[in-house]
Amino acid sequence: MTRPGGHPDPMTTRDPLHDPVLAGDRRALARAITLVESTRPDHRDRAAALLDGLRAVTQAQALRIGLSGTPGVGKSTFIETFGLMLTGQGQRVAVLAVDPSSARTGGSILGDKTRMDYLTRDPKAFIRPSPASSHLGGVARRTREAVSLCEAAGFDVVLIETVGVGQSETLVAQISDLFVLLLAPAGGDELQGVKRGIMEIADLILVNKADGELKSTARRTVADYAGALRLLRKRPNDPDGFPKALAVSALESSGLEKAWSEMQSLADWRRANGYWDATRAEQAAHWFAEEVRAGLLAQLDRPETRARMAEMARDVASGRRAARAAAVDLLEMLRGA
Amino acid sequence: MTRPGGHPDPMTTRDPLHDPVLAGDRRALARAITLVESTRPDHRDRAAALLDGLRAVTQAQALRIGLSGTPGVGKSTFIETFGLMLTGQGQRVAVLAVDPSSARTGGSILGDKTRMDYLTRDPKAFIRPSPASSHLGGVARRTREAVSLCEAAGFDVVLIETVGVGQSETLVAQISDLFVLLLAPAGGDELQGVKRGIMEIADLILVNKADGELKSTARRTVADYAGALRLLRKRPNDPDGFPKALAVSALESSGLEKAWSEMQSLADWRRANGYWDATRAEQAAHWFAEEVRAGLLAQLDRPETRARMAEMARDVASGRRAARAAAVDLLEMLRGA
Repeated sequence: MTRPGGHPDPMTTRDPLHDPVLAGDRRALARAITLVESTRPDHRDRAAALLDGLRAVTQAQALRIGLSGTPGVGKSTFIETFGLMLTGQGQRVAVLAVDPSSARTGGSILGDKTRMDYLTRDPKAFIRPSPASSHLGGVARRTREAVSLCEAAGFDVVLIETVGVGQSETLVAQISDLFVLLLAPAGGDELQGVKRGIMEIADLILVNKADGELKSTARRTVADYAGALRLLRKRPNDPDGFPKALAVSALESSGLEKAWSEMQSLADWRRANGYWDATRAEQAAHWFAEEVRAGLLAQLDRPETRARMAEMARDVASGRRAARAAAVDLLEMLRGA
Repeated sequence: MTRPGGHPDPMTTRDPLHDPVLAGDRRALARAITLVESTRPDHRDRAAALLDGLRAVTQAQALRIGLSGTPGVGKSTFIETFGLMLTGQGQRVAVLAVDPSSARTGGSILGDKTRMDYLTRDPKAFIRPSPASSHLGGVARRTREAVSLCEAAGFDVVLIETVGVGQSETLVAQISDLFVLLLAPAGGDELQGVKRGIMEIADLILVNKADGELKSTARRTVADYAGALRLLRKRPNDPDGFPKALAVSALESSGLEKAWSEMQSLADWRRANGYWDATRAEQAAHWFAEEVRAGLLAQLDRPETRARMAEMARDVASGRRAARAAAVDLLEMLRGA
């Protein structure tokens, strides 16, 4: 099919990455994610067409698990052990990350893949560090598209990792079907350290390091969190007993089967009760609106617009013009452009 | 002067409010602020022209003081007593508010003007509650323009009040020349309750209620805060000794002269050392950029755009389209419109 102008319609010409991604080729998947993360205008168009094309031929859904935990909680060990358990059951597992620090440092979470030595080499697994972007919202938008590519590539479980700082959890929860918070065993006082907002989005709290000397502390911590979770208002998309707190040991690989079966039963309940589709639909609409907003604001990044804005900002700063009137002029210029 | 089309140029036709605002008429000032807060398109154009017109004929600057304090700290009593002291010295004082809750409740701060009975009736004072808006950034943008109108109307001091929740303080600091934090006397433990971010923008911490039984507690609290402030990194726009903590009693009207002289000496130092102009220029550029961003996003509020977006969001939610490709289409539609 060609457009009136005679050029091939980019929406119907298949991208060379289309078929290999669909076939589950991990190298093609990695290249597709790189394409999606690119800010080059031609890459952007190609990425949009690739995503739209894949969307048209597959509606495959993975279980998307958001995972947060502060540094030192044993998150890498947990992902490695949990991931290997799943691949051992024949599932294909992708691990992505949303790292709020990546804007500055170029990505630290999952940067050191050697911490997940076995999972990295597992042919059923795919691990990808956080995209670097100028702001967290952009990182999350690109990660959501990476999740979508992983689903098209036939992955069954996608883990989306982030670090416990609040804002990134909220964004990751907007990409996930369920949200897991990994915590360390701790005294009752330290329980206060977990932001209420994060407690409210968690479906499952896993207290890690329930092994050796920390075993009894971990059990007490689970009881503390279970009590705290009961105080939170019940959410409509939760079956009885959720959100839930459990003790696990990534090191001894204990409690992980139980954690996985809890995740599955929560997902099944949500699917059966219509919350799964409703949440995904809501998330899709949310990210569409975010895409539109980001696209509008991207006009301001053009070099000629930047230069004009800097000039007008000087007029405003020196008091020659009021900010609003100058803004009206700039917006008129943008409409004319 | 007329434009090529024969219509009078709104930038050169004086608004009927222009002269009375310049003359310091408080009723005209109130009406001008209402105009600035209006979201009606014709009001917006008129407001932009009025602000720009006033900017062209006066560069009068008030001392803009941001003021924050949690409920119960005696903020209304402080503003009343402090305001009356200033008007008693012959200064004209305006009190504005940025209320993060106003979006929902229609404004609570300063809503009850009877709490400032004397100041309200003082002909040298002007008190205005927080504008109601759908989001805090909008409230702050409109308040900044209200400040500008107060300056054009010849006010010497503009107090911009907000409540201690973090985000609104940051916004008010972006409108103010200096920032005052009003606190209650408290034990050392409660000191932790003040967010570090707010401590970092405060130029002066006033511990109120240094009277009666609380007098010695207030002095200890001042010492605690003074210690905490010393631990913060020195900011380049601070002279030696700032930020500073002082004890005041709004009830007994003690310590207020001292607080005012500290504010003046800080302002004088900043003027003498170039920080005053630099900060104002930076703020103006910041709000210009915010105005532009808000103006771009306002395109999405048009009824026909809303309807089209809702329709496309349904396609995205149902999985028929990828969010990015749908966003590209919508943005193209907006460019064509």
